Amino acid sequence: MEMCIRENMTIEKEGIIMQVENIGWDSRLAERTAGMRSSVIRELLKLTMEPDIISFAGGLPAPDFFPIREFNEACQHVLQTQGEVALQYSPTEGFQPLRIFLAEMMSKYGIHVEPENILMTNGSQQALDLIGKLFIDRDDCVLCSRPTYLGALQAWNAYEASYCSVPLDDDGMHIDQLEKELEAGTKPVFVYVLPNFHNPAGTTLSEERRQRLVELARKYDLVLVEDDPYGELRYEGEYLTPIFRLAPERTIYLSTFSKTLAPGIRLAWITAPKPLIARLVQAKQGADLHTGTFVQMVTNDICQRGILRQHVKRLRVGYHTRRDAMLDAIAEHWPEEVKYTRPAGGLFLWPRFPEKIDTRDFLEIAVAQKVAYVPGFAFYPGEDGGRHAMRLNFSHSNEETINEGIHRMGVALKHALS
Amino acid sequence: MEMCIRENMTIEKEGIIMQVENIGWDSRLAERTAGMRSSVIRELLKLTMEPDIISFAGGLPAPDFFPIREFNEACQHVLQTQGEVALQYSPTEGFQPLRIFLAEMMSKYGIHVEPENILMTNGSQQALDLIGKLFIDRDDCVLCSRPTYLGALQAWNAYEASYCSVPLDDDGMHIDQLEKELEAGTKPVFVYVLPNFHNPAGTTLSEERRQRLVELARKYDLVLVEDDPYGELRYEGEYLTPIFRLAPERTIYLSTFSKTLAPGIRLAWITAPKPLIARLVQAKQGADLHTGTFVQMVTNDICQRGILRQHVKRLRVGYHTRRDAMLDAIAEHWPEEVKYTRPAGGLFLWPRFPEKIDTRDFLEIAVAQKVAYVPGFAFYPGEDGGRHAMRLNFSHSNEETINEGIHRMGVALKHALS
Repeated sequence: MEMCIRENMTIEKEGIIMQVENIGWDSRLAERTAGMRSSVIRELLKLTMEPDIISFAGGLPAPDFFPIREFNEACQHVLQTQGEVALQYSPTEGFQPLRIFLAEMMSKYGIHVEPENILMTNGSQQALDLIGKLFIDRDDCVLCSRPTYLGALQAWNAYEASYCSVPLDDDGMHIDQLEKELEAGTKPVFVYVLPNFHNPAGTTLSEERRQRLVELARKYDLVLVEDDPYGELRYEGEYLTPIFRLAPERTIYLSTFSKTLAPGIRLAWITAPKPLIARLVQAKQGADLHTGTFVQMVTNDICQRGILRQHVKRLRVGYHTRRDAMLDAIAEHWPEEVKYTRPAGGLFLWPRFPEKIDTRDFLEIAVAQKVAYVPGFAFYPGEDGGRHAMRLNFSHSNEETINEGIHRMGVALKHALS
Repeated sequence: MEMCIRENMTIEKEGIIMQVENIGWDSRLAERTAGMRSSVIRELLKLTMEPDIISFAGGLPAPDFFPIREFNEACQHVLQTQGEVALQYSPTEGFQPLRIFLAEMMSKYGIHVEPENILMTNGSQQALDLIGKLFIDRDDCVLCSRPTYLGALQAWNAYEASYCSVPLDDDGMHIDQLEKELEAGTKPVFVYVLPNFHNPAGTTLSEERRQRLVELARKYDLVLVEDDPYGELRYEGEYLTPIFRLAPERTIYLSTFSKTLAPGIRLAWITAPKPLIARLVQAKQGADLHTGTFVQMVTNDICQRGILRQHVKRLRVGYHTRRDAMLDAIAEHWPEEVKYTRPAGGLFLWPRFPEKIDTRDFLEIAVAQKVAYVPGFAFYPGEDGGRHAMRLNFSHSNEETINEGIHRMGVALKHALS
C-alpha cells in the first residue's frame, strides 16, 4: 500500500516519519487552553533529575519507606483469589469493600459517613479536576489562601476560574480577611482550604478558625473544599476537628493514599453529600469511566490486613526525624534573617527571606550549588506574590542528605546576602 | 469536642450521620453540567448485575481469557526489581520504556512515530476527555457518525459540544454525506472516526473511504480523531491502512490495552503530532498528574516479554468463535426480518429491527426473559435515532451462554412481532 504523505510535510529518517509541519494546533484550541500551562513543579522535577542534585523541590514521599513487600503480597493475593474481577471494568463509584473501609477509617477522625458518600479518584488531582468541572464557569471566583496548592490552580485554570485569595499566618488562613471579602460582596463558587500542614506553607488552621470558617460558610451559604492529604502525618500535638465534621452538609473532603501508602498507584477519594457524589460520578464517567479495579483491590487488601495503619505509624516516626533534621540544619547553616514556621506534620517547610533574595532568581544559584527547591511565586494565583519564599520538602531525603542540601543552600544564601 | 451540627440538618442513626438536608447542589453547578448525564450503559450494567441475567449489554472483554498468571509474574518482577520507582510519582507523558514499545508496535501497522508522539492515559475515555478539554468551546461542532460511541458523547457533552452526524453503512461512515456537510459550511473542531469494527455498528471504513476522508481533511483543513480500540482484534480479512498513516500531520490516534489485555488496569495511549502532545500533557497534568506508574510498569513488563502478542492471538481465536456462535444463533433463533452486519472483528453486533420493535421499550421484555442489550438510541447524539437497533456484545459470554441468550431474545421477538 502506498503511503499518501506529501513530501513537503514529512521526512523519513531511519524509518521514522518526522513531522516537520505544524498545522497550527494552538489556533484550533478552545479558549480555556489560554490559561493552561505546565506545572512549574513538574517542569522543575525534570530539571532536577540529575543524580548529583539534592532536590527539596518535589512533594515526594520517601521511596525507602515504601511497603514494597506488602504490595507484592497483596498483588499475589488479589490475582490468585479474584483475578477475573481485578482485571475487569468496575463501577465508577469505586470498589465497595474499600469504600466501606474508608468510611470506617474516617469515622475515627469524626467524619461519619456511609460508603455511598465516597467516590474513588485517580489521586486528589482528579478530585480537584472533577470539582472544577462541576462548579466553575468562566470567571467564577474560587476563594483560597495565599499561597495555595499549585496543583489546584492548575486544575481550575483549565475551567477559567478567577481567584480571590486571603493571606495566612501560623494559624492558617486569615478568617477575618475572609469575612471582609465576603462582606465586600465576593461570591465564591467554593472556598478551598488546606487545614492541616498546608502545602506549601506548612501551617495548620486553628480550632477556633475552623469554627469561625464554618459559621461564615453557613451565614453566606458557601461550599467548602477541604483538602487533607497529610492529615494522618502529624508528628506532634493533637488532631483538630475536620471541617467536614463541623459542616457535613456543605463540605467536600479530599484525601489520598499518595502520602500514606504510595503515589505511584494514583488512588484517592472524595467524601461529600450524596447528591453531589451523584454528580461527581457522572463527571468521572465522562472523564475516565472508573479508577483502576486492580489498584483499588490491591490497596483494599493492604488496608484490610492492617498494613496501612502500621505503615502510617512508621512514616510518622521517619518523617518526624527528617523534619527535625531540616529544622536543625537550617538553624545551623542559614542566616538568622530567614523566617520559617515549624510545621506539626506534613511534608513541607516554607522559609521566607529578606527582600534581597528573589527565590526565582536564586534558583539558578542554588542549582549551580546542586540543590533545588520550588520558588514561592508558583503557589500564588497570578504569580504576584511569594517572591521571597520557597517550599522545601523534607520527606524525600534522608537526614544526611537534608543536612548537606541545607548546608549547600546556606553557603549560597550567605553569599547572596553579603 | 462538641459536634456543631444543627438538629434539623442531620440525624444520627447507628453512629452514622445521615444527611437529610440537600443544600441545593444543582443550583450551584457550572452551566456545562446541564448536558452531563450518566452513561446509559453504565446504569444498565448495574441493572443487569443479577447473576441469572445473560447480558450482551457491556463492552466487556472475556474474564476467562485474562492473563492472570502473567500479570502476577509481572507484578512480582516489577516490585522485586524496581519497587521504589513503581510506587513513586512519574512523568505525565508516561513510562518511557512502554512508550518506546508502543512506537515499535504501531510501526507494524504503518504508524511511524517516536515515543515522544505518545501520551499514556487512563483508558481511552481519558483520551476523549482531554481532547474535548483542548478543542471544544461551547456549541462547537463535533462531526461524527450516526450511531457513534456513546462514551465519546459523554466526554464531550461536558464541554458543551454540539454534534453534526453523518450516517454509516457496511463500509463505515458515508464520506459523500460528510462532503455535503463540509460543502454546506459545517466547520467541525474535529471529525471523530471509529474506522475498525465500529462501536456500536461493527462496520469497518473501507480503504477507498479512508483515502477520500483524508483528501477532504486536507481540503477543509480538518483535525481527525481516529479511535481504534479493537484494531488488533480482526478475525478475517486484511488490515486496512490507519488514517494516522495517511495524514499524520492532522490525526490524533487513540488505542488501548483495555481490549487486548485487561480493562481493569485503565491503560491506553494517544498518538499525535508533538505540538499537540505538549498541550495534552498540560491538560493531563491538571487532570490527574500522571497515569499510575505501577500499572504502566507491569504492562510494560508483560509487553517486553512477548505476552501481549501471544495473548492477542489467543483472543482472536476465542472471540472469532464467539462472534460466529452469535451469528449462528441469530440465524437459527431470530425472525428473518432482523438485519445485521457481519463484523470482521471487534466485540459488537448491531441488529436492526422492523419498526414494530422499539428497542427502548423492548428492553423491559428482554430483561423479563433474563437477557440484556443496549438500546440503539444511546449511541445517537440527541437521542433521535437508533430506536429500532440494538448493540450486542459477543466477547464476554461463552458459546453456550450466547446461544441461550439469543434464543431467549428470539422468543420475545417472535412474540412482539406476531
